[in-house]
Amino acid sequence: MPLFLNASDTGFDAEFQAFLGTKREDSPDVDVVVADIIADVRKRGDAAVVDLTNKFDRLALTPETLRFSPEEIEAECAKVDAEDAAALELAASRIRAYHEKQLPEDASWTDDTGAMLGWRWTAVAAAGLYVPGGLASYPSSVLMNAIPAKVAGVERLAICVPTPDGAVNPLVLFAARLAGVDEIYRIGGAQAIAALAYGTETIAPVDKITGPGNAFVAAAKRRVFGKVGIDMIAGPSEILVIADKNNDPDWIAVDLLSQAEHDESAQSILITDDAEFGRAVAQAVEKRLETLERAAIAAPSWRDFGAVITVPDLECAIALSDRIAPEHLEICVDDADALAAKIRHAGAIFIGQYTPEAIGDYIGGPNHVLPTARSARFSSGLSVMDFVKRTTLSRMTPEALAAIGPSAERLAKSESLEAHGLSIRARLDRINEG
Amino acid sequence: MPLFLNASDTGFDAEFQAFLGTKREDSPDVDVVVADIIADVRKRGDAAVVDLTNKFDRLALTPETLRFSPEEIEAECAKVDAEDAAALELAASRIRAYHEKQLPEDASWTDDTGAMLGWRWTAVAAAGLYVPGGLASYPSSVLMNAIPAKVAGVERLAICVPTPDGAVNPLVLFAARLAGVDEIYRIGGAQAIAALAYGTETIAPVDKITGPGNAFVAAAKRRVFGKVGIDMIAGPSEILVIADKNNDPDWIAVDLLSQAEHDESAQSILITDDAEFGRAVAQAVEKRLETLERAAIAAPSWRDFGAVITVPDLECAIALSDRIAPEHLEICVDDADALAAKIRHAGAIFIGQYTPEAIGDYIGGPNHVLPTARSARFSSGLSVMDFVKRTTLSRMTPEALAAIGPSAERLAKSESLEAHGLSIRARLDRINEG
Repeated sequence: MPLFLNASDTGFDAEFQAFLGTKREDSPDVDVVVADIIADVRKRGDAAVVDLTNKFDRLALTPETLRFSPEEIEAECAKVDAEDAAALELAASRIRAYHEKQLPEDASWTDDTGAMLGWRWTAVAAAGLYVPGGLASYPSSVLMNAIPAKVAGVERLAICVPTPDGAVNPLVLFAARLAGVDEIYRIGGAQAIAALAYGTETIAPVDKITGPGNAFVAAAKRRVFGKVGIDMIAGPSEILVIADKNNDPDWIAVDLLSQAEHDESAQSILITDDAEFGRAVAQAVEKRLETLERAAIAAPSWRDFGAVITVPDLECAIALSDRIAPEHLEICVDDADALAAKIRHAGAIFIGQYTPEAIGDYIGGPNHVLPTARSARFSSGLSVMDFVKRTTLSRMTPEALAAIGPSAERLAKSESLEAHGLSIRARLDRINEG
Repeated sequence: MPLFLNASDTGFDAEFQAFLGTKREDSPDVDVVVADIIADVRKRGDAAVVDLTNKFDRLALTPETLRFSPEEIEAECAKVDAEDAAALELAASRIRAYHEKQLPEDASWTDDTGAMLGWRWTAVAAAGLYVPGGLASYPSSVLMNAIPAKVAGVERLAICVPTPDGAVNPLVLFAARLAGVDEIYRIGGAQAIAALAYGTETIAPVDKITGPGNAFVAAAKRRVFGKVGIDMIAGPSEILVIADKNNDPDWIAVDLLSQAEHDESAQSILITDDAEFGRAVAQAVEKRLETLERAAIAAPSWRDFGAVITVPDLECAIALSDRIAPEHLEICVDDADALAAKIRHAGAIFIGQYTPEAIGDYIGGPNHVLPTARSARFSSGLSVMDFVKRTTLSRMTPEALAAIGPSAERLAKSESLEAHGLSIRARLDRINEG
C-alpha cells in the first residue's frame, strides 16, 4: 500500500512534511575507497585502470584493449535489429532538433559612455560521458548526454561504459556512433572517472564529465569536481502526476509504474482532487503489478515510497507540487496548459493525457537527464548549456574610462587594493594630459 | 624574479607544461572538522551556530542577535562616506544593466507531428550569499553576487558575513542594502554554510549558495552540494596580459600587480612578442613594488608565480592563452578586437589598453566572480543564469503520439522497461480504436 494523504485532514501538513523528508536512498560511504582509486589512477595511469577493470569487471584487458576498436564497434552495431536502429535514429533526430534550439546567442553593445560590453559563448573542447553497465546500460541515455555535447560543438567526446564479464550492449555502441561519439572505453567505476579527469597514457583528459552512475561513480565525480566540470549527482527517479477524475485510472497507473519500475528507491506520486479516482488508480496499479515484468522492483517502490494525495482543489495541487519540486510532472486535467503555466519547480512537465512521461524518456525531444531529489528548486536538466561557457567582454575608450574610472578608483581605495586603483589612475593621468 | 620563458627556446613545451601544473595553493584538509560542524548545526540549529560563532569570532551572540536589525543596518550605512556611496551606486546601476541583458527567454513551438515542445525559465526562490569577513570583505563582491540574484527574480536573498571581534564593514552592509538583500546574518565559516543549507530556528534554508570563502567555507559548500545548488569553488585570482611593445610598461606592470596584490597565491602572467618589452615591464613591476602598500603580498606572488613569456608572434600567444584558460585576460595589442575574437578559453576579456582589468572588478558591468585555476575550459563567471532554472515542456496530441509513440515503445522494450512501453501502448490502443 502506498501512502494515502488528504490535504483537508488535520495534521496533513506535518504528514506531508515528513513525507517530503523521507530518505529513499542510503548511499554507502565509499569516499575513502574512491580516493584511493583516484590516487592510484593518477599515479599509475593505464596500469591502474587495467588492474582495477580486470579485478572489478572480471576481464583480462591490456592498455591496448581499453578502447573499443572501430572494427569492434562496427561488428557490435551490425547486431542491432533494423527496427531498433530506426527507433534510435528517430529519437536522435528529435533530440537533436530540440537541443539545437538551446544554442545561446552572443551579445555586444555600446553603452552611453562609449564602452563596448558583451559576451561570447564557446564550446567545451573535450567531454566524457559515463554510461553504466549491466541492467541500467541505456542507449537512450547515450543519446541524451552525447547529442547536447555535439550540438554545443564539443570536438572530442569520449564514453566510458563498463562491460562486466565482457557483456557488451550493442545498442549502446550504436547510439554512441549515431550521436557522433569519438572514443569508447570499456571501463567503469571510479577508475573511469579518474581516467577521464586526469588522463592516462591512452586516455586524454577531458574538461567536463556527465552521466549517471553508482555510488562509486557519484563519489568520484564529486571528488574531481573543480579539476573538471561535472553535471548533477543524480538520485533515484521520481514522477508526480496531477490528475482529475476525467482520466482512465489504468493510464495513470502505468505512468506511475513507469518510474517505479526503474529502481526500488524510485518514487511515484499521484495528486488528485477526487479521492475516489485516487483509490481507482491505486487499484489499477495493483492489477498491473500482478503481471508486470519488473514487479519485483516496482512493487516495493510503490509500497515504500508511493503516495496518493487528495486535494480540495487543483490550486492546492500546484502548491504541493512546488514543494515536491518533482523531476517529472505529468498534468492530466481539463486545462492542463493553464495549470502547467502556474508550476514553478519541476524538471520537466508533460502536459495532457496523451503525453505519458515515457515519451520524454525516449523520443519527445527534451532531455531525460533531469534534477532529482527536490533539486529542481535550483537546477535544470542536462542541455547544450552544460557544454558551453561564456566569456565576458569589455572594451573601454578613453572617454568611457574618464567617465567611470574615478568611481572604480574610489572603490579600490575603499577595499585597500592600491594597485587596482593605480592601474586606472595611470590611464586617467594620460587621458587628462591629452 | 618571475619566471622568464621564451616560446622559441628548445625545451619550452616542457617548461610551459610544468608552469601550468604549478600548484599555487595547498588547501588544508578540513573536511572532517567541517563534517562535524555541519552535523552539529543540523542537530542543534541556532544553538550550534551561536556557540561556533562566539568561539571562532570571539563574540557573545544569542539567537536573537544573529541577524542584523534594520536599525543596525541603518546606523552602519549612515557611516558611509558620500563619495563611496555614489561610487557603489554607479557600480550597482552598471552591474544591473549588464546582467539584465542575461535574462534568458522562454520558448515553445509545434513540430511537424503536432507536438508542442519548449521550455520555461523560473527563478530560484531563495539564495544565500557568503561574504568573507576581515581583509577580504569586499563590498564589490556583495554587488556582484546579489545583483544577478535579484535581477533573476530571487525573492529571498540572505547574506552571511562574519564579524570577527565585532568588526563590521559599513560598506558591505551598504552594498547589501543597495542590491536589495533581504536578510543579513553576522555569521561565517562552515557553520554559516550549514545554516543556509539546512536552516535553523531563525534562519530559513535557501536553495542556492554562492560567494567566496576560506578552506572551511569551500569544504562546506562542497559537502552541501546537492542539498542546495552552489557556485564554483573559487581559487586564487589570476591575470594574463597579452601586450605588444606599443604599450607603456608601467601600465602593464600595475595591471599585473593588481592581481598579485590580492593574495600571495595569485598569479600574473605577461605574454609579449617583444622580449625587450617584457624586461621593461618586469623592471616597472620592481619599481612599483618599492612603494606599493601591499608589496608584502604582491612581491611573493610575482616572484613565486609570475611569468613573462616571449612568443615569436601573437598567434602563438593565443594558443598559450587557451592552454592557460585565464580568469582575466587583458589584450593590449594593435588589433585587440581581432585577437580577442580568436580566444576560446577565458573567464573575462579586457580589450585594448584603456581597459585595465580593475575596471571590471568594480564598475564595468560584467561579473567579477570568474572561473579560476583553468576552469574557464568548462565553466563561466557568475551570472543571472546561476539563479534561474529551466523546466522543459512537452504536449503530445493523439496524432503526435501515434506518429512517434511506436518508436518509444520499441526503445522501452529494448531497455526492458515494460511499464514505460505500456504507458504508451495504453494510449495508442485508444487512439487506434477511435
